[in-house]
Amino acid sequence: MTTRQVAPPISPEQAAVEQELVDTVVASFEKAQDPRLRQLMQALTQHLHNFAREVRLTEDEWNAGIEFLTAAGHITDDKRQEFILLSDVLGLSMQTIAINNETHKNATEATVFGPFFVQDAPEIPIGGDIAGGANGQPCWVEGIVTDTSGKPLPGARIEVWEADEDGFYDVQYTNHRVAGRAHLFADQDGHYAFWGLTPTPYPIPHDGPVGKMLEAVGRSPMRASHLHFMVTADEHRTLVTHIFVQGDPYIEAGDSVFGVKSSLIKRFEQQPAGAPTPDGRELHGATWARTRFDIVLAPNPDLK
Amino acid sequence: MTTRQVAPPISPEQAAVEQELVDTVVASFEKAQDPRLRQLMQALTQHLHNFAREVRLTEDEWNAGIEFLTAAGHITDDKRQEFILLSDVLGLSMQTIAINNETHKNATEATVFGPFFVQDAPEIPIGGDIAGGANGQPCWVEGIVTDTSGKPLPGARIEVWEADEDGFYDVQYTNHRVAGRAHLFADQDGHYAFWGLTPTPYPIPHDGPVGKMLEAVGRSPMRASHLHFMVTADEHRTLVTHIFVQGDPYIEAGDSVFGVKSSLIKRFEQQPAGAPTPDGRELHGATWARTRFDIVLAPNPDLK
Repeated sequence: MTTRQVAPPISPEQAAVEQELVDTVVASFEKAQDPRLRQLMQALTQHLHNFAREVRLTEDEWNAGIEFLTAAGHITDDKRQEFILLSDVLGLSMQTIAINNETHKNATEATVFGPFFVQDAPEIPIGGDIAGGANGQPCWVEGIVTDTSGKPLPGARIEVWEADEDGFYDVQYTNHRVAGRAHLFADQDGHYAFWGLTPTPYPIPHDGPVGKMLEAVGRSPMRASHLHFMVTADEHRTLVTHIFVQGDPYIEAGDSVFGVKSSLIKRFEQQPAGAPTPDGRELHGATWARTRFDIVLAPNPDLK
Repeated sequence: MTTRQVAPPISPEQAAVEQELVDTVVASFEKAQDPRLRQLMQALTQHLHNFAREVRLTEDEWNAGIEFLTAAGHITDDKRQEFILLSDVLGLSMQTIAINNETHKNATEATVFGPFFVQDAPEIPIGGDIAGGANGQPCWVEGIVTDTSGKPLPGARIEVWEADEDGFYDVQYTNHRVAGRAHLFADQDGHYAFWGLTPTPYPIPHDGPVGKMLEAVGRSPMRASHLHFMVTADEHRTLVTHIFVQGDPYIEAGDSVFGVKSSLIKRFEQQPAGAPTPDGRELHGATWARTRFDIVLAPNPDLK
């Protein structure tokens, strides 16, 4: 996919000096009481040094790295987390999700959690509306929750949350309104349905060092349109995921945090104004959309 | 030197999911106009993901990493640089020095620059005193500066700086005194000499996240006693280095920033009170020490 550039050859003496330093730093962690901490620090040391040695990191580049981290630290506060953004745009967040949610047969795939989940979002009945006053095109979402054998999971808890049509989550406003988020429970057949908003694309915060980096490398800060789900059921692995809108240009161009998986791209069918709604809801001549998302939960690995 | 722990085996499907993500992130940097920036970001991505995959990074550990970086960012200001400390204690600073100061025959080895160099330190004559009021045992330092063929380098500029006997550099005090630093020039035979202070060990700042990490892994924040040099001469590579005190316990126990190289450990000969000094200086019954440091500069690689 890419050609790794090869560093200029170095003398055996030089390679020995560099390797001896790596070995010394790795050995310095041998006394760590906690074997996992020891493993993490030793592996981090190896990979960090391998990076610097492979690219023949210059002193100016090292300085630029220190300055980048310093700027990221200084823009980070209770509401802005530049280090998470950095992890996101380097794909590390998504890789951590992948590592901790190993693929399991036909179970629905996980994706990034994101920073906008809120505890204690309101409960709605099946067919209820999560909008809570958030603006956007109404969108009917339904499906069933099953295990990997296809057996329905009655009572599965489904948390959903999303941005409004301007690309903002409720918590990004100052009015303290709870909007665009709710939870509901699957019925005895595992079926669920709700009214949400047709998702729209939005940029991750890009006025800081991470945004500058994206610009320098010619990458967009845009996230592909998506709707968040967290689904829990007894004796099953909790699923944190999104569904994405088929045809969204940012799927093709590249979601800025690498959250898209092809299995999570769903068809959102646009409905003409006045088309009858599944539950008879009166939309006063507005257009609406509908999509289907069947959810398959993996067994809880701790219960094996 | 250490046994790398092997991660539990993962399925080929899981490995493929993880590798596909790495490839996608690497490909996202293909559009970078600057080929060096592209190379750096792609290599960083590879090594970061390899680290996470190898250790099977948990979500809690990922969170701990984010919190560590956040705390490091928040303690960093104009006077405190926790990210440099982090780079130092992971050996990355020293590795960057090593990469950019390749070993050259018999040339004197480089080591870390450290954060305490100051421009425009006073000039002293050969045999002058750098103390400027800093406390410590007087120490006579002398040697010659030559090229790798042994030819003296008259007029070589020698900058020296060091902490006082309490382990603090002048800039760590609030009195704005310039002390424990100076520069001088080698004579026509390449010879230099000055009065400094016998170096003493001191800890790097360890009241922040880096200090907590060192404590958690059972490492000391102490630096082995040292005296800084920066030596420049026309048509030669600038040398940034230290000399260390033979017998210092923190050489054996491990310098916290990995700056020690065996070629830089020098004998500091303790002299009894009243022993005559090389230049006839009257020390009023104080003990003193002496050491010799012959400096060999490599040719400037840009002039090859």
